[in-house]
Amino acid sequence: MDKSEQALIMHEQWNGKLEVVSKCKVKSREDLAIAYTPGVAEPCKVIAKDKDAAYRYTMKANTIAVVSDGSAVLGLGNIGPHAAMPVMEGKAVLFKEFGGVNAVPICLDTQDTEEIIRTIVAIAPAFGGINLEDISAPRCFEIEERLKKLLDIPVFHDDQHGTAIVVLAGAINALKVTGKNKETCKVVVNGAGSAGIAIAKLLLNYGFCNVTLCDRDGIISRDYKNLNWMQQQMLSVTNLENKNGTLSDALAGADLFVGVSAPNIMTKEMVASMNKDAIIFAMANPVPEIMPDLAKEAGARVVATGRSDFPNQVNNVVAFPGIFKGALEGRATQITEEMKLAAAIAIAGLVDESELNEDNIMPQAFDPRVCDVVSKAVKENI
Amino acid sequence: MDKSEQALIMHEQWNGKLEVVSKCKVKSREDLAIAYTPGVAEPCKVIAKDKDAAYRYTMKANTIAVVSDGSAVLGLGNIGPHAAMPVMEGKAVLFKEFGGVNAVPICLDTQDTEEIIRTIVAIAPAFGGINLEDISAPRCFEIEERLKKLLDIPVFHDDQHGTAIVVLAGAINALKVTGKNKETCKVVVNGAGSAGIAIAKLLLNYGFCNVTLCDRDGIISRDYKNLNWMQQQMLSVTNLENKNGTLSDALAGADLFVGVSAPNIMTKEMVASMNKDAIIFAMANPVPEIMPDLAKEAGARVVATGRSDFPNQVNNVVAFPGIFKGALEGRATQITEEMKLAAAIAIAGLVDESELNEDNIMPQAFDPRVCDVVSKAVKENI
Repeated sequence: MDKSEQALIMHEQWNGKLEVVSKCKVKSREDLAIAYTPGVAEPCKVIAKDKDAAYRYTMKANTIAVVSDGSAVLGLGNIGPHAAMPVMEGKAVLFKEFGGVNAVPICLDTQDTEEIIRTIVAIAPAFGGINLEDISAPRCFEIEERLKKLLDIPVFHDDQHGTAIVVLAGAINALKVTGKNKETCKVVVNGAGSAGIAIAKLLLNYGFCNVTLCDRDGIISRDYKNLNWMQQQMLSVTNLENKNGTLSDALAGADLFVGVSAPNIMTKEMVASMNKDAIIFAMANPVPEIMPDLAKEAGARVVATGRSDFPNQVNNVVAFPGIFKGALEGRATQITEEMKLAAAIAIAGLVDESELNEDNIMPQAFDPRVCDVVSKAVKENI
Repeated sequence: MDKSEQALIMHEQWNGKLEVVSKCKVKSREDLAIAYTPGVAEPCKVIAKDKDAAYRYTMKANTIAVVSDGSAVLGLGNIGPHAAMPVMEGKAVLFKEFGGVNAVPICLDTQDTEEIIRTIVAIAPAFGGINLEDISAPRCFEIEERLKKLLDIPVFHDDQHGTAIVVLAGAINALKVTGKNKETCKVVVNGAGSAGIAIAKLLLNYGFCNVTLCDRDGIISRDYKNLNWMQQQMLSVTNLENKNGTLSDALAGADLFVGVSAPNIMTKEMVASMNKDAIIFAMANPVPEIMPDLAKEAGARVVATGRSDFPNQVNNVVAFPGIFKGALEGRATQITEEMKLAAAIAIAGLVDESELNEDNIMPQAFDPRVCDVVSKAVKENI
């Protein structure tokens, strides 16, 4: 039986991958009087006087919502809120299993930016954080920015920042392996959607100086047609020479390629045109921009993908559970740039210098230290 | 230590009475590939083609939202969404412990009718049902009615219908004990809010013919000032003779009093003015409209309250878990009048004729048969 069939059978068997369970058993009238009426009135009264007490007496302390509108789900595209549920449940499973965080999947029956913002604000009181998921660009940027201003709990779009954190973690170690440095390293990010733009931003914030964004029609420049507002904004920090051309043109002489785009769009010739000791993050899933063996044959030194069956898996799961664990434990009201940078550095630091090599730049997804170092990094930056 | 202190300590210890747990352990890359990417794409694709498959592959099959705006919480009034959380979590605990239903508490940061409706419609895809809770009248009527039209999943306002179902169940058995019959039984319902109005409606639908509603200023009649639209509507089915007067006036010659109002508002004189074998449901909580001993002294035959320390506890918990269990198992799209009537009859039927007496008209909240007979009654009426 292949994986797809097996997944379908297991999903039918689970009939929902999550369960909401009670921490307090209700076996007697006494129990009922404590967990429900009349006893429950006490914590209610305390919270009515001091909203903050919700973190002492309710699940808000350790519960987030995983919210999607189903508009950009995995590689499947705009499949709508019902079809997005298995992914959001899966994400919630990972929050719990890797980070100990309760996560409730919420799939929205609207793709209108204003409606989405209004709805999330309206449901926020029960939650200690909001993880946005699989919302298409450029709406995702506005939704996240506006929510960060409107809410006093952390809002985090994982497709953007989770991805950016793990890419930066890998890039930090790839620089060490290749002896390159961030100031002179020429970076090309292919795919100017939510992930690509967030990656470019975080690399720049870390100290990379030369980043070029590409999308379907080549290099993002002032001459690129139909840029959205966020892509426009990126022109002030990327491609400062305003070069035009194709992805191939961008890659000539580049040091680091980050692909969050489409399968097989990178050729061996492109790799060969890059600088010596080229670093390739080919993260299209499940089929990367170029297969690792081809990239290596063409001269790449470090190749990372999103897949677990090749070395150097770049997997968000090393970031998001620890991010929210730390934010909730530390009662952060925002996930800041400093937290993201510290998280990336902490993840990179888990690969011991003695074990670091071109086929080992990332900690394993199941490394039990990962969540703790990430949550610590977040808490230290509150 | 008193109950209030104990409840506060326990709520702090629980730090949230619910937990979201995974049914699928994720211990290996294999597990990850089934529960998350790439395997999860399969159920997504199936649901994208057939929305109904969400009931096979996601938690929608057995999960409801418990939604409140915090405007009418217990006896505490309008305490807002944060302070309402302990109650909604408690309710969710009862759904799980008594009915096996996953329930997610959602407290809304808005008390605007249109916003509430929009928000609930927007979050509905993840859920198999919506339990409205502690929303003040008359907004609760419009919110429920509109949502029933907008959504294809059951919407149920427990303060209305849960209460009405258990009162009707008790009333059915009280009639048997007293030898009264529904056609001639004169009913006075005191409190014309969500519960009172729903009780009046369900008693009428069951076949009671003579129901009078009272509120703070006495009998609800065409002459009552400032009736809301729902109270206006009730004039076409209650108080058909358009009597005016106080609660005392209404009670003279009445057979059944149902109080969902305020502590100690009923005097022994009022009880004494009722018909022989008077039936009193004094459900103000925690202090009833009249204490059972006083009511008995004044001549009442059957006295029920909301409290567990007196005989005949009228407790919604015998209704709502089974209502949703049955609705979800049977894939009902609505909770209909027929289901509510059948549920009340089923609950009443649990008290065996041989055990039925004035101090035993209700099954116990912890009677393990309750949830099953209620869910069966619902399913038989889909």
